Amino acid sequence: MKKVAVILSGCGVYDGAEIHEAVLCLLHLARNGARYQCFAPDQPQHHVIDHRTGEESGEQRNMLTEAARIARGDIQPLSELRVEDFDALLLPGGFGAAKNLCSFAFEGAACEVDNEVLSACSAFARARKPAGYCCIAPVLIPRVYPAGVKGTIGTDAATAGAFAAMGGEHIGCAVTDVVEDAHYRVISTPAYMLAQSITEADTGIGKLVKRLLEM
Amino acid sequence: MKKVAVILSGCGVYDGAEIHEAVLCLLHLARNGARYQCFAPDQPQHHVIDHRTGEESGEQRNMLTEAARIARGDIQPLSELRVEDFDALLLPGGFGAAKNLCSFAFEGAACEVDNEVLSACSAFARARKPAGYCCIAPVLIPRVYPAGVKGTIGTDAATAGAFAAMGGEHIGCAVTDVVEDAHYRVISTPAYMLAQSITEADTGIGKLVKRLLEM
Repeated sequence: MKKVAVILSGCGVYDGAEIHEAVLCLLHLARNGARYQCFAPDQPQHHVIDHRTGEESGEQRNMLTEAARIARGDIQPLSELRVEDFDALLLPGGFGAAKNLCSFAFEGAACEVDNEVLSACSAFARARKPAGYCCIAPVLIPRVYPAGVKGTIGTDAATAGAFAAMGGEHIGCAVTDVVEDAHYRVISTPAYMLAQSITEADTGIGKLVKRLLEM
Repeated sequence: MKKVAVILSGCGVYDGAEIHEAVLCLLHLARNGARYQCFAPDQPQHHVIDHRTGEESGEQRNMLTEAARIARGDIQPLSELRVEDFDALLLPGGFGAAKNLCSFAFEGAACEVDNEVLSACSAFARARKPAGYCCIAPVLIPRVYPAGVKGTIGTDAATAGAFAAMGGEHIGCAVTDVVEDAHYRVISTPAYMLAQSITEADTGIGKLVKRLLEM
């Protein structure tokens, strides 16, 4: 039975992990016979967004504490992730990936990646263990893998341009499909970068998870 | 295309709507060709639980604002739910159903149901429009329907006893199955009252949603 580490970035599309994507990741992992363990950085979120209004609420919340809601309490600090305990890595999207795990939402191609996140993702890359990135999380790929690594954030020209500016090779991709870099063993899917419905996100994520477990 | 109203009670199993159940409800509605609109009471949650530790955090959060995270911002106050706009009603579980939508978690069979929740659920019952209740949410059924209404919360003896004490006929049920009251057109499934995995919850909720849309 394969074991997959899932990195979450909070709980909610506008300031954390996208909830549908995160749950669909867990669902497809379980359906395909894999075990999973959720992780998140034990650090403050960049900010808290009121998801009704889209405005900042002024609250302070912790990524690990909020992500625990998606994980039903079964979550560990990202600093405790040991690559040798897992067969693969999986990152759902949501603005948390671009606001909390790195600074892409604010700095684009000049973004920096959180040290714990970079350390964890790079450990999977060095160990040549497969990794899956959904939605906006693939902006981490050019920071984790060598120049020329292939990935997708869907079709958004500005984001694709930033992916390329960071050294990645961006490949346009439909919401129901995935882009696989066979050499670096990393796979990505647009999910809610393009999805108009939960079923569209489900199709791409289902394909990504199945392939991740085959790799 | 059928349209289903989904009532959420926050965002997180210990103080709001159970996130996996809520997302699985939306997924199966969409997969079966139905449209949905999420609602939640625009009221404070009973309390906020740190899902890592299980302890109260002392924060104050609003059910509608937090449920908006699950609904990706597309949510309306429960007070605006008009039964004539919908074909069916669906309630995921989570402690929010027993702490926020009613007081069952604290008062058992003596519980009171929030006025807006009772009004909305009763309107679907009176209109003879089908309704689905997941996990612990079925404790609302005996308060909404006449005595003798059939439902399930799984197999927990104390909760089943309280269901019966409120006038319902409790029927034990496996996690992968549903209990249907054909007369009152209400259907229930144990979900995380019994589920040991997200795939078990998915099976029961999938069956419930399919049947809800056929009724």
